[in-house]
Amino acid sequence: MGNLFTRLFGPKPKNSALTAKERLMVVVAHERDERNSKPDFLPALQKELLEVISKYVTIKPENIKVSRDRQDDYDMLEVNIVLPDNR
Amino acid sequence: MGNLFTRLFGPKPKNSALTAKERLMVVVAHERDERNSKPDFLPALQKELLEVISKYVTIKPENIKVSRDRQDDYDMLEVNIVLPDNR
Repeated sequence: MGNLFTRLFGPKPKNSALTAKERLMVVVAHERDERNSKPDFLPALQKELLEVISKYVTIKPENIKVSRDRQDDYDMLEVNIVLPDNR
Repeated sequence: MGNLFTRLFGPKPKNSALTAKERLMVVVAHERDERNSKPDFLPALQKELLEVISKYVTIKPENIKVSRDRQDDYDMLEVNIVLPDNR
């Protein structure tokens, strides 16, 4: 897949204050078969994924950014979490 | 983020037999603060994520491809699942 991380986060700035924060990004992409599609389960899956992740890191609701992208043949969920300093 | 889906999966071939399969992709990317890093939790998280996902879709072990990418300041886990036709 090449450097997927760079494709996800973009190029990383050097020695910037912005890089001091820890970030966690979760992407769930569902490519559907149009002839045989199931009910959309991503919203429910998203909720459970966040519950699992919150066992490992402290997630504050204000530090979560969720975006959905939906087109004919795919459904995508992207969750960006900035982790607090006092973990 | 623009069209992240295309960046993840690459351009989609038109009317190919390959596109008939449903796919699910989960990416967890953890950008660490080098000065304050936590123990690596991605392997344990991966296990739990697969358990959650398997509640929604049938996952056959042979249809899962997991890859890790780890560098100084980030850790990335990528799970690709091809979903069986008989769901």
